[in-house]
Amino acid sequence: MPCKNCSSSPVIQLTNSNIKLCKSCFIRYFEKKAFKTIHQFNLIDKKDKITVAISGGKDSLSVLNLLNKLAEKRMDIKLTAILIDEGIKGYRNETIKDAKKFCKNHNIKLNIYSFKDGFGFTLDEMKNKLKAKPCSVCGVFRRYLINKKARELKVNKIATGHNLDDEAQAVLMNQFKNNIQVSARLGPITGIKRNPKFIPRIKPFYLLTEKEVMTYAYLNRLTGKYLECPYESESFRCDVRDFLNDFEQKYPGTKHSIISSFLEILPLLKTKYESSKIKICKSCSEPTSSEVCTACEIRKKLK
Amino acid sequence: MPCKNCSSSPVIQLTNSNIKLCKSCFIRYFEKKAFKTIHQFNLIDKKDKITVAISGGKDSLSVLNLLNKLAEKRMDIKLTAILIDEGIKGYRNETIKDAKKFCKNHNIKLNIYSFKDGFGFTLDEMKNKLKAKPCSVCGVFRRYLINKKARELKVNKIATGHNLDDEAQAVLMNQFKNNIQVSARLGPITGIKRNPKFIPRIKPFYLLTEKEVMTYAYLNRLTGKYLECPYESESFRCDVRDFLNDFEQKYPGTKHSIISSFLEILPLLKTKYESSKIKICKSCSEPTSSEVCTACEIRKKLK
Repeated sequence: MPCKNCSSSPVIQLTNSNIKLCKSCFIRYFEKKAFKTIHQFNLIDKKDKITVAISGGKDSLSVLNLLNKLAEKRMDIKLTAILIDEGIKGYRNETIKDAKKFCKNHNIKLNIYSFKDGFGFTLDEMKNKLKAKPCSVCGVFRRYLINKKARELKVNKIATGHNLDDEAQAVLMNQFKNNIQVSARLGPITGIKRNPKFIPRIKPFYLLTEKEVMTYAYLNRLTGKYLECPYESESFRCDVRDFLNDFEQKYPGTKHSIISSFLEILPLLKTKYESSKIKICKSCSEPTSSEVCTACEIRKKLK
Repeated sequence: MPCKNCSSSPVIQLTNSNIKLCKSCFIRYFEKKAFKTIHQFNLIDKKDKITVAISGGKDSLSVLNLLNKLAEKRMDIKLTAILIDEGIKGYRNETIKDAKKFCKNHNIKLNIYSFKDGFGFTLDEMKNKLKAKPCSVCGVFRRYLINKKARELKVNKIATGHNLDDEAQAVLMNQFKNNIQVSARLGPITGIKRNPKFIPRIKPFYLLTEKEVMTYAYLNRLTGKYLECPYESESFRCDVRDFLNDFEQKYPGTKHSIISSFLEILPLLKTKYESSKIKICKSCSEPTSSEVCTACEIRKKLK
C-alpha cells in the first residue's frame, strides 16, 4: 500500500489506523499534529522565552527541532536549550555530543549543568552511596536543577519531549502505586499559576506516540544513536511500558484511550490537589510541598 | 508458619501481607472486613429490604451467606434472593441447583426470572442471532431484569458479590476504552439518588480480593463446583484480569492501589457525570440515559 497522500513509497503505518505515509507526508503530519497540540492546549503565548530541556536523545532533539522551526517563523519567541549532565558513563557523555552538534548547527544557545557541580556527585557516584533506585534520585535532582536554572536564565516556559506513551505510563504508574495526587501534576502544560518559583512545563508531543517521535527523529537524522539509559531496566516504568505495548498491540487505541480518559479527569484532579499551598524549602528556598524539599533530603543522605 | 492468631494450621496467606490464618480465624477476619465495608460506606440502613443478586457461584453465595448472618441478628432487615437464568447450557443450570439448595437450607425466598421469559430467547439462542459478543448483551439484559424485578418485589437495595478484583478490572477496562463516564457508576454503593426507578446496588466485598472470597466460599462449602461461564474466555475482561494478576504477583498491592486511587476520584466523577438527567425509555418506561434504553435496542435487533 503506498502513501495515502501522494502514492510515494511509505515509511510508516500510523498508530491506531491503516494509514501509511511517505517520509515527507509523515513529517508534515507529525509537525501539524504537534502544532495543533500547542494550539489546543495553549502551550505557547506571545513573547514566550522557552528553554527546551534536552538530553541529546531522540525525544528531546525532536521537540527542539520542532520548536526551532516555530521560532524561525515567530520572531517574538526566544528559544534556548538546557541540558543536565547527570554523570552516567557510556551514556550521557555520548548523547551530549549529539546535543552540542544540533545546537551548534541550528545556532541555539545550549546551557549545560551537571549533578557533579550542583550536588557534589555524579549519578554513578550517588548510586554507590545511596540505597535508593537511581531513577527516583535522578528524577528529583534533574527536575530541581532544570527548574532552578531555567528561572535563573529568566525563561518563562520549559519544553520537554514527553510523548503519549510516557504520559500513559505515568498515569498508570501513579494509579498502581496509589499516588493519584501526583497525577494532578501531569498534563500537556503543568505548573501554571502554582507558584512564581515554578517555571511552567509544556509537552508539544503530548498526543504523539513513542513510535511516531522515534520515526520523526530518524527521518530528520537528529541522532545517529538510540541509546538506552543503563539504569532503565531497573525501573517499575519498564514493566508498565511493556504491558502497555502488549495491550496496544492486541487492542489498538489503548494508549490514546488512557490519555483521553485522563484529560477528562485532569481538571478535577487539579482542582482537588493543586490548591494545596506551595511552601518554600527551609534549606534551599526552592518551592516544595513540605518543609524541606526532596532534593535537600537526598542531599543530606549523600553527606 | 502457623496461624497468626491462634497457632493452628493455616489455610491462607492474606493478599498483600505475610499474615497466615487458620480456617476459623480467616472466616472471622473475612466477615469482619465485609461488615466494616458495610459500615464504612453506609451500605445498609435500618429497615432495608435487600435482595441479593445471586448466580449460584462462589461470589454471590458468599455475599448471601454473609448478609444472612447479618439478617439473623438484625430483625429490621428483610433478606431475599434473586436469580436471573440467562439460559447458558451446561453452566447456569448447574449453578441454579446450588442456589436453590442454599436458599432452601437457610429459608431464604428465592425469585428466579429468565431471559427466555423476559426477552423471548435464551443467551445461547441470542448468541446465534446477534453478532455482538454474548458478554455485552448478557450484562445489559441481566442488569435490566434485576433492576425491574427488584422494583416489582418492592426491595430498596440489591446486593451483589462484586469483589476488589472485579472493580479494579472494571476501572481499567473503562479507562482503556475511553469510557471514564461509565466509571462514575462504579463504587461500593451505586444508584443512590439517581432516579427512583433505579434500585441502589451495594457491594459488601468491595475491599476483599477474589482469592479471599473464593477461600471463604470453599471453607463454608457454599458450592462444590467452580464453573466458569463458557463465554468468559471471549471477553476483554479476561486479558485485563490476567494482566492485573501478573502485576499483583510482581508488585503486591497493585489492585488495592487501583481501588484506593479510584475511591479518591469517584466523588469527582459522580459530580461530573451523574448529574445528567435520567430519562425514561420511550419503549419500555425503564430508566435510561438516552431516548430508548440499550435493552430495547438489542430487543429490536433480536426480532
